[in-house]
Amino acid sequence: MAAHSVSPLAPAAFPELPAINGVKLHTATLGIRYKGRPDVLLAELAEGSAVAAVFTTSTTASAAVRWGREALRGGKARAFLVNAGNSIAFTGKAGEQFVADEVAATSKLLSCEKNEIFTASTGVIGEPAKADRITDALPAMLAETASWSDAARAIMTTDTFAKGATASAEIDGTTVKIAGIAKGSGMIEPNMATMLAFVFTDAKIPHATLQAMLADCNGRSFNAITVDSDTSTSDTLLCAATGAAGNAEFDDPNGPDLAAFKTALEAVLVDLAHQIVRDGEGASKFITVNVTSALNDGEAKTAAKAIANSPLVKTAIAGEDANWGRIVMAVGKCGVMADPNKLTVSIGGIPLAHKGERVADFDEAPVTAHIKGQYIEIDVDLGFGNGSATVWTCDLTHGYISINADYRS
Amino acid sequence: MAAHSVSPLAPAAFPELPAINGVKLHTATLGIRYKGRPDVLLAELAEGSAVAAVFTTSTTASAAVRWGREALRGGKARAFLVNAGNSIAFTGKAGEQFVADEVAATSKLLSCEKNEIFTASTGVIGEPAKADRITDALPAMLAETASWSDAARAIMTTDTFAKGATASAEIDGTTVKIAGIAKGSGMIEPNMATMLAFVFTDAKIPHATLQAMLADCNGRSFNAITVDSDTSTSDTLLCAATGAAGNAEFDDPNGPDLAAFKTALEAVLVDLAHQIVRDGEGASKFITVNVTSALNDGEAKTAAKAIANSPLVKTAIAGEDANWGRIVMAVGKCGVMADPNKLTVSIGGIPLAHKGERVADFDEAPVTAHIKGQYIEIDVDLGFGNGSATVWTCDLTHGYISINADYRS
Repeated sequence: MAAHSVSPLAPAAFPELPAINGVKLHTATLGIRYKGRPDVLLAELAEGSAVAAVFTTSTTASAAVRWGREALRGGKARAFLVNAGNSIAFTGKAGEQFVADEVAATSKLLSCEKNEIFTASTGVIGEPAKADRITDALPAMLAETASWSDAARAIMTTDTFAKGATASAEIDGTTVKIAGIAKGSGMIEPNMATMLAFVFTDAKIPHATLQAMLADCNGRSFNAITVDSDTSTSDTLLCAATGAAGNAEFDDPNGPDLAAFKTALEAVLVDLAHQIVRDGEGASKFITVNVTSALNDGEAKTAAKAIANSPLVKTAIAGEDANWGRIVMAVGKCGVMADPNKLTVSIGGIPLAHKGERVADFDEAPVTAHIKGQYIEIDVDLGFGNGSATVWTCDLTHGYISINADYRS
Repeated sequence: MAAHSVSPLAPAAFPELPAINGVKLHTATLGIRYKGRPDVLLAELAEGSAVAAVFTTSTTASAAVRWGREALRGGKARAFLVNAGNSIAFTGKAGEQFVADEVAATSKLLSCEKNEIFTASTGVIGEPAKADRITDALPAMLAETASWSDAARAIMTTDTFAKGATASAEIDGTTVKIAGIAKGSGMIEPNMATMLAFVFTDAKIPHATLQAMLADCNGRSFNAITVDSDTSTSDTLLCAATGAAGNAEFDDPNGPDLAAFKTALEAVLVDLAHQIVRDGEGASKFITVNVTSALNDGEAKTAAKAIANSPLVKTAIAGEDANWGRIVMAVGKCGVMADPNKLTVSIGGIPLAHKGERVADFDEAPVTAHIKGQYIEIDVDLGFGNGSATVWTCDLTHGYISINADYRS
């Protein structure tokens, strides 16, 4: 397996994450595919923890995702069990058995219902395996606890750095904490395919409320990033609320009592999502695409995604070329309501094209300086309506081709 | 401007195209952007020639496309005027004036209606220009005729080879000829953005009938290819029928009298479309994606396009990796009805995954031999329904990144 050097966009260090009451982390080093590092994570949750989740929309979803969709109906979780190195996706009955065995063993050890156990697997697609190796290790795993940084490393495949984020908020005067970890860097190396994120809070929040908040915040975080437009069969975002903080309980996901918590939750999700983009395959630049004055928010997001997914826009940024013609092209192809005579395109805050014509005498120096930097901002104003959206992506470089084509699995 | 070496998938030579009665080709070498080669084409058509056209669906379409959409209502054409080097797209009023001046000058010279003149421009986006240079050259152009190969070269931007195709058919006992030229290799180099194709026949076919046949055949030719999923602002397919062959006229585009003609027309369009893929930026392999047993043909095409546009599938092929997991991923993400337990994926005719599980003991040698070749076949059977579709694409290599990112415009 080729080792990739750490992304130039990686944070300086793994952040300090606080302990979350009601959450115990356990890891094991089983060498499923990666050697000499933890590759299995069991996040044990206090009894009664509420759970919320968002899964891949793929119609060829993995067995773990299909199980998760079912189990989520119960609204509670006692553990998340995750392995890296084999996604067990597209292995037919073997995959279903793998998940069933994991769920049976874990629920027995924790004396809970099966639908309180959520699993996730990331790694090779299509390689059948038995769960024995993992289930046999569970008793020893439970005997020791692991750090956040161990947990974040245990779920990595070819990520070049471990990803964590934290925030806190007050609910009716009680301080609650949020901590999350994630993995993913596009679809990663040949056969590797998953974005995973696990977020924990000691807040007391009912399942349905947590689910509504998670789904909403997910739209502006993980669902607002793209590395290469490819969607994994195993993408999973799980959020557990242990209730250990003892705050007063509120139901309304959009009410004033949970507003600060929701802001903090979104901040953690956005931070983790950005870290996945910063670990995008071959990424050398982090790109923010803002689309404004669209017919509505949905159309704004469609246009922003079209720009962020365009190989021609992404290669132009890699080439440090302020090529606004390609941005116009991407807007035009995606089918949203647009009028070439109303479009304004800015890079680094400087308008390059205004109302359908290039700006003849714009100041090139600050645009050139901006595009040579690591953080690129593209603003497109469609010239009518109030819809807006922000999407984050990375550039498309020789590194992406090298990672995905230069060697065989 | 960087010169790219000829695509490894290029045909050995430009084909021999027959003269088409009622069509006179004229070119000029004006040095608009390219030096020492023709860069303007005027295809003069006999009076009363019927025209059919398919234009880009982009909502930021160029002025030439917007004019063409209007002019098509007349159903007749006396000339196609094409220039390479400047697309005049996204230049606001300047672009509209450019097209209006071209149309006025050409219709005056040919003593015809303005809506019998169609124009196309390919090259830099967003650079305003005046049409004088081209309109001033028209009288001299009309004085001499050019060859098919000159005409095909005159419309190239950074294509690495000139593209032409021909076929013939009988209509009610009369032999009619078809000849076509095209240009395009993805969105080509920075700021270059257009696929153009011009097809001529001496058959006598009414406008509405020709339009229906062209639109239908286009769906299985130009609309069934993809290089990088990006859609140009200027894509144009124009077809003229001069009627000089003197065949009996038939109205039904799907009737038995025109069946042979339609087959020949589709053959020319498919040949030209394949040549564009074979000139795809950085292409080293030509990929055919067949999807069968989908819910309907539309869903089959959606799935085939998702596979053909997936950067992970395209880089896997470039890396000569029979990575069927990525093909399953692409099917899953595109939203068509699919069941992981019914999918069969074959490469080079050898099933690698059957009904949701990998084929454990498939014969690897022929698959390896196939994927090391230049022509790759991917077959996906969704396992229910009668829908099918074929899409053609090329692989994604370092060449694509080099062409699009390694130098600035």
